[in-house]
Amino acid sequence: MRIAVDVMGGDHGCAVVIEGAKRALQADKNISALFLVGNKSSIHAALPQGGFRDHRVRVIHASEVLTMDDKPAAAVRKKKDCSIARAAELVHEGKADAMVSVGNTGGIFAAATFKLGRIPGLDRGGIATVIPTPDNEFVLLDSGANIECKPINLAHFAVMGSIYSREILGYKNPRVGILSIGTEENKGNELTLDAFKLCKRLDINFVGNVEGHDLFDNSVDVVICDGFVGNIVLKTCESLAMGIFAMLKRELTANPQRQLGALLAKNAFRTIKRRLDPEVHGGAPLLGFNGVVMKAHGSARERAIASAIRITTESLQHHLNQTIARDIARANQRLACIDPHPAAVLSEN
Amino acid sequence: MRIAVDVMGGDHGCAVVIEGAKRALQADKNISALFLVGNKSSIHAALPQGGFRDHRVRVIHASEVLTMDDKPAAAVRKKKDCSIARAAELVHEGKADAMVSVGNTGGIFAAATFKLGRIPGLDRGGIATVIPTPDNEFVLLDSGANIECKPINLAHFAVMGSIYSREILGYKNPRVGILSIGTEENKGNELTLDAFKLCKRLDINFVGNVEGHDLFDNSVDVVICDGFVGNIVLKTCESLAMGIFAMLKRELTANPQRQLGALLAKNAFRTIKRRLDPEVHGGAPLLGFNGVVMKAHGSARERAIASAIRITTESLQHHLNQTIARDIARANQRLACIDPHPAAVLSEN
Repeated sequence: MRIAVDVMGGDHGCAVVIEGAKRALQADKNISALFLVGNKSSIHAALPQGGFRDHRVRVIHASEVLTMDDKPAAAVRKKKDCSIARAAELVHEGKADAMVSVGNTGGIFAAATFKLGRIPGLDRGGIATVIPTPDNEFVLLDSGANIECKPINLAHFAVMGSIYSREILGYKNPRVGILSIGTEENKGNELTLDAFKLCKRLDINFVGNVEGHDLFDNSVDVVICDGFVGNIVLKTCESLAMGIFAMLKRELTANPQRQLGALLAKNAFRTIKRRLDPEVHGGAPLLGFNGVVMKAHGSARERAIASAIRITTESLQHHLNQTIARDIARANQRLACIDPHPAAVLSEN
Repeated sequence: MRIAVDVMGGDHGCAVVIEGAKRALQADKNISALFLVGNKSSIHAALPQGGFRDHRVRVIHASEVLTMDDKPAAAVRKKKDCSIARAAELVHEGKADAMVSVGNTGGIFAAATFKLGRIPGLDRGGIATVIPTPDNEFVLLDSGANIECKPINLAHFAVMGSIYSREILGYKNPRVGILSIGTEENKGNELTLDAFKLCKRLDINFVGNVEGHDLFDNSVDVVICDGFVGNIVLKTCESLAMGIFAMLKRELTANPQRQLGALLAKNAFRTIKRRLDPEVHGGAPLLGFNGVVMKAHGSARERAIASAIRITTESLQHHLNQTIARDIARANQRLACIDPHPAAVLSEN
């Protein structure tokens, strides 16, 4: 497996990304090549004395970087030699099998769209985020790439999310639900009502609509929504969890008795912290493109980068994209077969 | 002040609602009349021996109840003698100034719409929910009544939410934000982009777009969105908070050392529980109707019912609806004044 790692654009500089890549390499002999893509002199300055000392590593120079201020789609077109685009090109040219980036999410999405293209039969890729709950974890898809979606996009997200949950997270028969405001089939907005009709025809374990209430009580393994709703849900969850932990910290340190209590119970907090740790997954895959694409958190540190690379290799080993291509083709056939006006369904593409 | 309390349809039966009403009456001499609306024999069976012993209380019989299975709008029209409709009629006829109900939210909304009507200049009412954060609390509006909204509806929610935050929650100059997926003016979907243009013309403290990340870090006091997004956000927050507390409980009771730690720190958990306690507000106001309307949680117990009635009386004392009527008229004028095609803005009504 050959992985292109865009080392630019992260919050902690490229040295942290390089160190994460080093750990991933050390842990996995099956990685046959790892490209560090970015500004050559920054990379060399960040490399350990005497270089990487691993023959699998190659540095690929890119003279530009996409910043958080860039408008993604326009910038990917304009900054032709930016590191995200270069990493995507390595995949497109067949020199790498997958890419990992800590950069601007919109930029990665744009690079994947323009440079790699979508798996046939899909007209939208999506970002899948794995969210931990007390007793399981669910895939939220789309978690921010597509502000406006059509029903067929949600149906395709359902297929891709189901595959990701099964192949990468190990859920045997993942329960897929559409995020809505009532569990009945007739509850929701125009988009979710129409997506419901498509999803129930698919060969997945579709459990119908789920509400916000269902997300954290082990009712669903794959949650489907448009990127507007998904992004709000994802960020709200992060914000609320941080808010609760901030309150806990404040209250538990308010006096010596509570401090002692917190000390005695510290392993309880550690377990919870570990359970909710975003670094375990380290990143969110962009599904639906011709090439495995992984977005690592902008704030990812070494361990998170290594995790993101590990999951990328798992996606390759499980032939994630081949399975997606096969199942999307089947889904489109199924939707076209059953629908008396296949053109009507497919024109939504 | 005269309050109509629909005692039917709560999770814990009408006795709990009646007891809550009793507490509210005892605490507030300014309540001059309190109508218990519902099935007469159920109410009498639930009343303390010898009746209520308060001359301000009157029982108003309603032969029907809206259940959770009823389709709200149709049911309010069909079940003419249901308790929610009867309570709304008391307000409409001028016999009561406000109504409180623990029943079906959709039913209350439908009764308010059909029986009370909307404040002039508004074409949608909304449900406002107060959500506590570590350092403030914010009003989420609309939190579930209107699945599809127009930009003008969001602008009106902004006006009403701002008034509620100032008059009832005591925020001097509440910060109002549109919930979106980026803070820049050009980030969002069609609805939020157009609503942004309207909101920035209003005489409120409009802070622009807010993201999920901003909700729990004291960045905003009034969060505006359509009811689809609002309902998902509200329920997701409830679900995640419960999930985290379930994990805490499980981990803190896992062994004797942690149990001892939790015991020593128990006041920390109590403070947090109290801070996040939904019973403090006890209910969510339906804003924009000709009459003060308060929805109490279906699961509300005595204390929550009493809180809901208390907030209802505060809304009356602060002339909430008169202020809303005045400010909505001004807002419509302002939007019409500035817009070169006032008809275009108002036709969105």
